[in-house]
Formats: sequence, structure tokens, C-alpha cells
Amino acid sequence: MMEPLKPGDTIGILGGGQLGRMLALSAAQLGLRSHIYCPEDDCPASHVSTEFTKASYTDDHNLKQFASSVDRITFEFENIPLQTIDTVAQLKAVCPSRKALEVTQDRLTEKHFLASLGIQTASFAAIDAEADLEACPHLTSAGAILKTRRFGYDGKGQVRVKDRAQLQNAWNEISKAPAILEEIVPFKFEISVVGARTQSGETAFYDPPLNEHRNQILFRSTVPSPISESTRAQALEIAQRIADQLDYVGILAVEMFVIDRGSEHSLLVNEIAPRVHNTGHWTLDACVASQFENHIRAVCGWPLGTTERTADAEMTNLIGTDFEDWCRAAKSANTAVHLYGKNQVRPGRKMGHVTKLTSLTKGR
Amino acid sequence: MMEPLKPGDTIGILGGGQLGRMLALSAAQLGLRSHIYCPEDDCPASHVSTEFTKASYTDDHNLKQFASSVDRITFEFENIPLQTIDTVAQLKAVCPSRKALEVTQDRLTEKHFLASLGIQTASFAAIDAEADLEACPHLTSAGAILKTRRFGYDGKGQVRVKDRAQLQNAWNEISKAPAILEEIVPFKFEISVVGARTQSGETAFYDPPLNEHRNQILFRSTVPSPISESTRAQALEIAQRIADQLDYVGILAVEMFVIDRGSEHSLLVNEIAPRVHNTGHWTLDACVASQFENHIRAVCGWPLGTTERTADAEMTNLIGTDFEDWCRAAKSANTAVHLYGKNQVRPGRKMGHVTKLTSLTKGR
Repeated sequence: MMEPLKPGDTIGILGGGQLGRMLALSAAQLGLRSHIYCPEDDCPASHVSTEFTKASYTDDHNLKQFASSVDRITFEFENIPLQTIDTVAQLKAVCPSRKALEVTQDRLTEKHFLASLGIQTASFAAIDAEADLEACPHLTSAGAILKTRRFGYDGKGQVRVKDRAQLQNAWNEISKAPAILEEIVPFKFEISVVGARTQSGETAFYDPPLNEHRNQILFRSTVPSPISESTRAQALEIAQRIADQLDYVGILAVEMFVIDRGSEHSLLVNEIAPRVHNTGHWTLDACVASQFENHIRAVCGWPLGTTERTADAEMTNLIGTDFEDWCRAAKSANTAVHLYGKNQVRPGRKMGHVTKLTSLTKGR
Repeated sequence: MMEPLKPGDTIGILGGGQLGRMLALSAAQLGLRSHIYCPEDDCPASHVSTEFTKASYTDDHNLKQFASSVDRITFEFENIPLQTIDTVAQLKAVCPSRKALEVTQDRLTEKHFLASLGIQTASFAAIDAEADLEACPHLTSAGAILKTRRFGYDGKGQVRVKDRAQLQNAWNEISKAPAILEEIVPFKFEISVVGARTQSGETAFYDPPLNEHRNQILFRSTVPSPISESTRAQALEIAQRIADQLDYVGILAVEMFVIDRGSEHSLLVNEIAPRVHNTGHWTLDACVASQFENHIRAVCGWPLGTTERTADAEMTNLIGTDFEDWCRAAKSANTAVHLYGKNQVRPGRKMGHVTKLTSLTKGR
């Protein structure tokens, strides 16, 4: 068992983007110091952390020095090399654990893991060799998506295909990397369950938002989502089962497709993220304790904060040049603005987000 | 007119305590960098700021270097020497302005300023010399408080007196510093108005909390306070008049005594603080935009965020060894914990605060 950290202790965070930044800000709220480890100079999290190490994820010397100087380690994204985790874990506990990373870094492993828990996903087939393209059964009229097994995010490493010719081209396009071919599911909408689990098995979940994507990047998350109480309970139960099975410590996000089955909804799991998640950013402004605070609390071995919603909310990402909208957002009533301090605007880059508390009727 | 700052710009903050820390955290939320200037090493704000200069408030060289490196300057407390402000103001705009500091650094100047606006205060007399002790008319049976004119906070530099002999001793006790003798007002309770004003004269006020002190240090602030709509309007109007008269930019706090006048309440102003204020800490958890965020917005020349309350709240300070309560607080439902990262617990030292959202009925 890990001992609970004390105020004044230092959380080490691998990764220095906006998620690391918001984790460091929440650590600060709780009286903790933060140490960011990131290969990029002037990264968003480095502006707010107590300490910052700029070094590569394969730099053993710096990794060990980093691990020695902190009291516990977490990470902001799932594409950290397992070797990096193994190096730092020799010196300090890492939460969530290697197992959660192993399962979620590979789409095929993740699908098998979900299947082993009896959790439904879209149909899929592994594509490891030319022969798999031939044998593949999934090219219905709706088409399918070829996805690299590893290192995909925000639609990167994904190609839609409608027939075998396109499939062959798509596989060439992703350099014949190990992949899975996934059926395109006629879903009604997407929700996500974001929740925290502690070492002792305490869990707390946020209300699942409805998520809308544009250009395969999250555009907006809205709470409450239009799901019934029973669908909500089912969604939370699925996330709970995943978290328990992974012996998870920290915040976990599970994306789910909501499918119409006559008068009822059913759920397919799309993806698991072993980290704080963009669809949970609204919790900063509309919950007693945000996903970032609860991640830090769980990692510290502290009790979880209340996940209850205090308002209805609509979180919109500021992507690329949407960023220029920050000023309009700052003028809007009942709207919280979060900017990530990124030094360059690039197409598709998440520059910030705004959360409108839609249940507050009175403006200023 | 000051130009509005842009995301990525740097706010310089004079003072590195918990107020500077929470200002830096809010600046980060808005995509700004922060530079803390403070004479003390390892101060709470230095853990979360982008840059930190440890130097004295009379160190011209470091002050100028600091001012050159930032885009705008603010401060976390009113006891910054005016000379310091004058030095940095040669290079960058300082908000709030020198005038607000001048008026509020000296209790006598502040009282005269309030009187000039027709705003009621407790009766007072200046004590500058032995002769003033003799001439003093205020020793009714309720007694009075001798307060140094300058550099007082949290009850420091204050002595209660009941008769002339005690008054003489009290004046000796404060080393015959210039002082004022203030009548003890039989007030029902204390409230405070915390609000923001921008350069263009836009203002936004928070709901006035009821404030309770223990050992002359704020113990708890509760919203809503038990005042009528007309008393509330009167309180806000007083704060507005003060802010307008000072051409104020940033967050201002005005402490007021609520006096029973038969069926009506009347208000006496106790003190003005030209800064974010302990009685506004609950706004971090129970408002769309906190006092810290609105201070930064005003200082940046941005529009103010919504000050509306999203919940009823009760903010309790963790003072000295109360700090050991943080763990119990972290377990309580609907409670946000804020710890300041101070490296030593000392009696009377503000170590953190907790805010309970009392209108949320459901726990986890």
C-alpha cells in the first residue's frame, strides 16, 4: 500500500501539455508542489509548476533524477513509453499503474480486455499482414475505419474505408503499421464516463456528458446528456468494472457510443483513456471537485472530493484559430475561460476551452 | 489608457503569500504568465509562478529588472512601500493605482477619505502626541480601540482600552506610533463587499458575506448574509462610490459593520482593502468567476467575469494548527480544500481555507 502524501510533498507529472498544466494547478490548490517532466521547452505546464525538467522520455539519467526528487509520479497522456514508466517506477510509485497503460496503449489489447469483461464494443478485426486484409469481413455499406493500434489521438492514424481497394490504400497510408479495422457504428451520440478510483477501491463518477466532434477532434461536451437514468447507471457500471479490473488509481475516462434499440439505448465502449480527459474539463467550473483535483487526490492517497454537479454546463474547445474567440468568450455571461499558454497557434491544436454554465439564468 | 494585455503576456505580482499564489493560479487559468517579486525565499506564490525574483522591496536594481520583464504590475497587499510602487511604475503600469494605496495605508487618511464621501465610520480621533490622549473624547463605557495608522493587519497594532490609564499604556505599547483611537461600535455583525472595477468604469460585486473573527483574525465568511435587499443595495452603493472615487482598477474589499437601528440596519465602513480579500475566498468555489480571476481580468484590461453565486457557501480559515484539520475537511462532502503550501505552521498564520457549499443537499 502507498502511504498518503502530505501537503508540501511533490507530485511528479510526466508530460507538460494542458492536462499537465491543469493537474499542476490542482496540485497547487491542495498545497502540493509539482515537478513537470517534458521533452519540450516552454511547455504549458512548465509555466505553473514548482520544478521543470526538460528531457526526453528515454533519458534514463534525467528520469532517475526526476523520480528521486518527487514523492509520487503520474502522467498526463497514455503514450508515455512503458520503458519510461519502468525506469521511474524503480524509485517512486506511479499512478495509474503500468497495467492501465499497457491495456490502453494498444487498441487491440484494449478491445480484448473489454471483451474479457463482457463489455460490448464495435466489431473489429486485427490487421497485421496482407492476408488479414483479404480475410476481413467488415466492409458493409456503412464502411469501416482502419486505426493504427498504437499512438493514435484526435483522429490521427485513422482512415475511413468503404471497400477493399480503399482498405489496401489506407493500410499503405499508415505504413502497414499493425492496425485494427473497426465497423462504423450507427450511433445516436457519444457520451463519456469520467471518474476517479482510489487505492482502497473508493470510486466517484461525474455525470456523463454528450460529446460532439468536428474533424475527429472533440468540439463540445454538454451536461446533462439526454440519457435515461437506467442508461446512466449502465454507463457508470461499465466504467466501474473497467476501473476495478485495472486496479485503477486516478481519473479514468471511458468513451461510449449510445445506440438506439427501439425504445431503449444500449452502449458500446469506444475507447478508454487512463488519464484526465477533455470531456471532463467542464468539471472545473460546474463541480465541487474537478477531475484534475480528484486525480491528484487519488494519486496522493487522499479521499475523493464531491463529484456532484452544481450547474448544467457546455464546454467548447478553442481549437487552432478558434483561439481568437477568447475575447468574445471572456465577455459572455456565465462563462469561464481557460487558456493553456501555448506559444503558437496551429491548426487542430487545442489552445483553450470555455465553459458556459447554462443553468444560470441571470447574467450580470 | 492602458492597452489590454494578450494571452501569453506576463503579470508581475508584488508579494508572494497566499493571495499572490491564488492570483498567479488565476492568471494561469487565463493563459497568462506570472512573475512573483517577494523578499522571502520559498514563498507560497513562488511554487506556482512562471518566474520568481527574491529581493527586497527597496532593491531598486531588482525592482527595475522585474518591471522590465513583465507587461503589467499588481500587488497582493497594501503595505507595499509607496517608493516601491513609484520605482516600478516608471517602467510599467501598476493596478490598482498609487492613490488607492496612499489612501488605505494610513487609517487616518482612509477615515478622512470616507468622511469626504459622506460615508459613515466609527467615531475616531487622531493620536499623534501626548496632548491628544488628554483631549480624547471617546472613552465611553464600551471602550475604544487604539490602532496604529500604518502597517496593521489581522489585529496587529491594535489595543483595546477602557479608560485613560489604559490608553496611556496602550500608546506606550505601540511605541507611541501615530495612531487613531476608534470608538467600539455595538455592531450586530460584519459584512464585506468585494467587487471589481475596470479602467472603463465597469463594476461587478459579489454577494456580501457575513464575517466572523476569532482572536481578531477572520475565522469564517458565510453567504448569503442575513441582510435585507435594501441594506445589500446600500452596501454595494458604498463600495461603488469608493471604487469610482479612487478610479480603482482591480478587486477592492470594503468591510462594513451592520448596526441595528430599530427595524432597519445601517452601515458603518470599518476598513478598505485595495486587493483581493480573505472574505472573498469563497468566490473560488461558489461563483462563475472568482475574485482572483476578476482582479486579473481588470488588471489586464479585459471584461469582468460573472460574479453571480452558484451556491450558498461557508468559507473557514485554517489558522495555525487548525491546519491539521485539512484531512477531515478533505473527507467532508461538498467541501473544497485550499492549502497554501506554507513550509511552517505558526500560531495565527493562515495556512489554508475550506469552502463548504451548503446549498448542495446531496452528498456523494
